[in-house]
Amino acid sequence: MSNPILVEVTRGALVESVHRGAIAVADASGRLRVSLGNVEQPIFPRSALKPVQAVPLIESGAAEAFGLSEQDVALAAASHSGQPMHTEKISAWLARIGCGVPDLACGPHRPTHEPTATQMILHAEKWTSLHNNCSGKHTGFLTLARQLGAPTVGYQLHDHPVQRAVEETLKDLAGLSGDLPWGVDGCTVPNFAIPLAALARAMARFTDPTGLSPTRAVACRRILNAMRSHPELVAGSGRADTILMNGTPDIVTKTGAEGVFVAIMPALGLAAAVKIDDGAGRAAETAIAAILIALGAAKKDGAAANLADAAVLNTRGAEVGRRRFIANLV
Amino acid sequence: MSNPILVEVTRGALVESVHRGAIAVADASGRLRVSLGNVEQPIFPRSALKPVQAVPLIESGAAEAFGLSEQDVALAAASHSGQPMHTEKISAWLARIGCGVPDLACGPHRPTHEPTATQMILHAEKWTSLHNNCSGKHTGFLTLARQLGAPTVGYQLHDHPVQRAVEETLKDLAGLSGDLPWGVDGCTVPNFAIPLAALARAMARFTDPTGLSPTRAVACRRILNAMRSHPELVAGSGRADTILMNGTPDIVTKTGAEGVFVAIMPALGLAAAVKIDDGAGRAAETAIAAILIALGAAKKDGAAANLADAAVLNTRGAEVGRRRFIANLV
Repeated sequence: MSNPILVEVTRGALVESVHRGAIAVADASGRLRVSLGNVEQPIFPRSALKPVQAVPLIESGAAEAFGLSEQDVALAAASHSGQPMHTEKISAWLARIGCGVPDLACGPHRPTHEPTATQMILHAEKWTSLHNNCSGKHTGFLTLARQLGAPTVGYQLHDHPVQRAVEETLKDLAGLSGDLPWGVDGCTVPNFAIPLAALARAMARFTDPTGLSPTRAVACRRILNAMRSHPELVAGSGRADTILMNGTPDIVTKTGAEGVFVAIMPALGLAAAVKIDDGAGRAAETAIAAILIALGAAKKDGAAANLADAAVLNTRGAEVGRRRFIANLV
Repeated sequence: MSNPILVEVTRGALVESVHRGAIAVADASGRLRVSLGNVEQPIFPRSALKPVQAVPLIESGAAEAFGLSEQDVALAAASHSGQPMHTEKISAWLARIGCGVPDLACGPHRPTHEPTATQMILHAEKWTSLHNNCSGKHTGFLTLARQLGAPTVGYQLHDHPVQRAVEETLKDLAGLSGDLPWGVDGCTVPNFAIPLAALARAMARFTDPTGLSPTRAVACRRILNAMRSHPELVAGSGRADTILMNGTPDIVTKTGAEGVFVAIMPALGLAAAVKIDDGAGRAAETAIAAILIALGAAKKDGAAANLADAAVLNTRGAEVGRRRFIANLV
């Protein structure tokens, strides 16, 4: 059975492309409120895992020991655009733990914020691992290694105490047991494959972490608040996460590569997770925006609406089609 | 019925994303040799239509009247990367027909060839409509308007003689009748929606245009030869079309936006057309390369093989998965 079509892209009067996928919405008790498509098949959350990957950093006491600000915590859970507002803070944080850019296991890539890339070209600057969208997460991992007294070299490996702590935390939040299947993420760290329903459950725990250990519950609250308070650090100028969070102050969203998006809705006590079968980010952001509206977490006429039903423009800026969510959530 | 999975993208031991789609392979007589998925549903060929869009230019006599070189003809059918080797030739051609960049209806966009974009930034140059990947096609349309004695202003409109000639030619090559449904392409001109099987048939006519009018047959042969002789002009450095054509000298391929790819195989008297349901270019190039190998048009261990089963790399250049064709063509 194939997953249902979630998003269609039209041109003129015809549908040009379609995106299939699955959607899971869970509450903090683990109950699935929405289940569309195959939500039990393991998927890679990719960067949507970052809020979970930041939990061991906070609960280890590293945040206090190394004086992490709320902004640093937001960056630990970010897929940032490599703008100066991101890289300058991460650079200062790295220095504070006695590390530098060469300690980052993630590889360099062009900042996704094009004006930043243009400025760097004009100033003959090269992008480094600091511009990798995951450099905040990696700096968090280095900080955790320091706090645990573990070697910083090799922190990205599956058997390193840092990654062991991440897997244990994920299993606790998602209600899973046993060894999780995993693959290597674009930034070199393990990414654990879990059912989409389990991803939604793990995210829903952030809305009500009672039942977790007290330090873990505090860590979840702190990460949620940090992300909610700094939408521009979690992604960047013009990015879907930042637009959605700025437009809907109560929620937290997190994108992941290959068509993943999660949204945490504290006021509703719910979290949603989307995986687009074909990995398209355009469809994942369309779907998550539509889900936020359908659940009443975002306004029908706000920023989310512009993502849930968006114009397809030609190179002269004229509308030639629409990209829109077409699935029925109930 | 959903289309079959053509391409899978793995990470570690798991499948992370999949791409569904349809494949049609036809011979010059119109007989379908391969039909996988729904090949009768209308799709937008997008830039895979360019070889057909160039036919009226040649058969009108405009190529002789304005002294078009073989390279100009290749550029008329190109989705070029905006490199100097493309834009300088198109600029000279525009001047030869008494037109300039402001006459191009296509909008400006960043050259897809990143080193070219970097050089332009460093020299404070702005990208113009000349850098639009379709500027060769548009210059061909302007040339045809001149030859027809039609106004150059408005050549991109559906009822302009230039676009009327394109639709008539497409119907002739594809064996279709009646008005074709259409939408506006990214470069502002009409793009006609036709079944994937009809697209394969139209392309197969280029391998043996007997039965077409003599001038049309000559035009088809000339376009095929121009594209075959100049793979670097049809796309650009590092692009799939250029790699495939350079690696397999006898064939012509043409990519289109939203997951379309066609391949013309003169030695076999066949043409193939692929449409990926979700519009992913990565899957279309994987599929067309695999089809070329399966049909014996490309070598099992050459350039096509590297596209048909490609490594997914992380930001440190390590292989973390594969992207590969998994459908069965027979």
